[in-house]
Amino acid sequence: MVTDLEMAMQTLIEVFHKHAKRAKASVHHLDRDELKHLVPKELSLHDDKMKELLQRLQNDSERGLDFKAFYSLIVGLTLACNQCYEDHINKHGGGITASKEDTS
Amino acid sequence: MVTDLEMAMQTLIEVFHKHAKRAKASVHHLDRDELKHLVPKELSLHDDKMKELLQRLQNDSERGLDFKAFYSLIVGLTLACNQCYEDHINKHGGGITASKEDTS
Repeated sequence: MVTDLEMAMQTLIEVFHKHAKRAKASVHHLDRDELKHLVPKELSLHDDKMKELLQRLQNDSERGLDFKAFYSLIVGLTLACNQCYEDHINKHGGGITASKEDTS
Repeated sequence: MVTDLEMAMQTLIEVFHKHAKRAKASVHHLDRDELKHLVPKELSLHDDKMKELLQRLQNDSERGLDFKAFYSLIVGLTLACNQCYEDHINKHGGGITASKEDTS
């Protein structure tokens, strides 16, 4: 049976390739148009943050993003989210996993 | 609405903290016992790969793993999975996203 962690890993791969394959010439890269399509569709960011991120990605990616570069972006976002989560736990206790099954 | 990508990012955070909070003294770290619990429960690896990974993690983590170190492990595994996937696509075409909705 596939675990939640494995499903999350698979989703990261799937989301990248779902968008990368839109242009048949570069099925393992996100080109600029694919990036402009992926970011607003897959990430709920405020408009100004969205524009800033797209601009930075487009400046950094003359040849588009491969999966490793795309994943670096996701790692940065996830680490930032985790920091917010840990700060919240430190201040208020509890957590987003409260309703999930126990690990025992 | 939370997207699949955001849900995957959240799952990575949740899985780590679900196991890290088992020992109340270090809620933002996985200690050795928590690691020994997490790896076989969350990753479907062959026994010898599982033992090798646990041994390496335990050698590298005298003070346990924080989220960043845990995520480094997941990044490595996901990049390896993605490479297998891209090799498969290059040889055979198609993909794991074939049954998913279009991105348009």
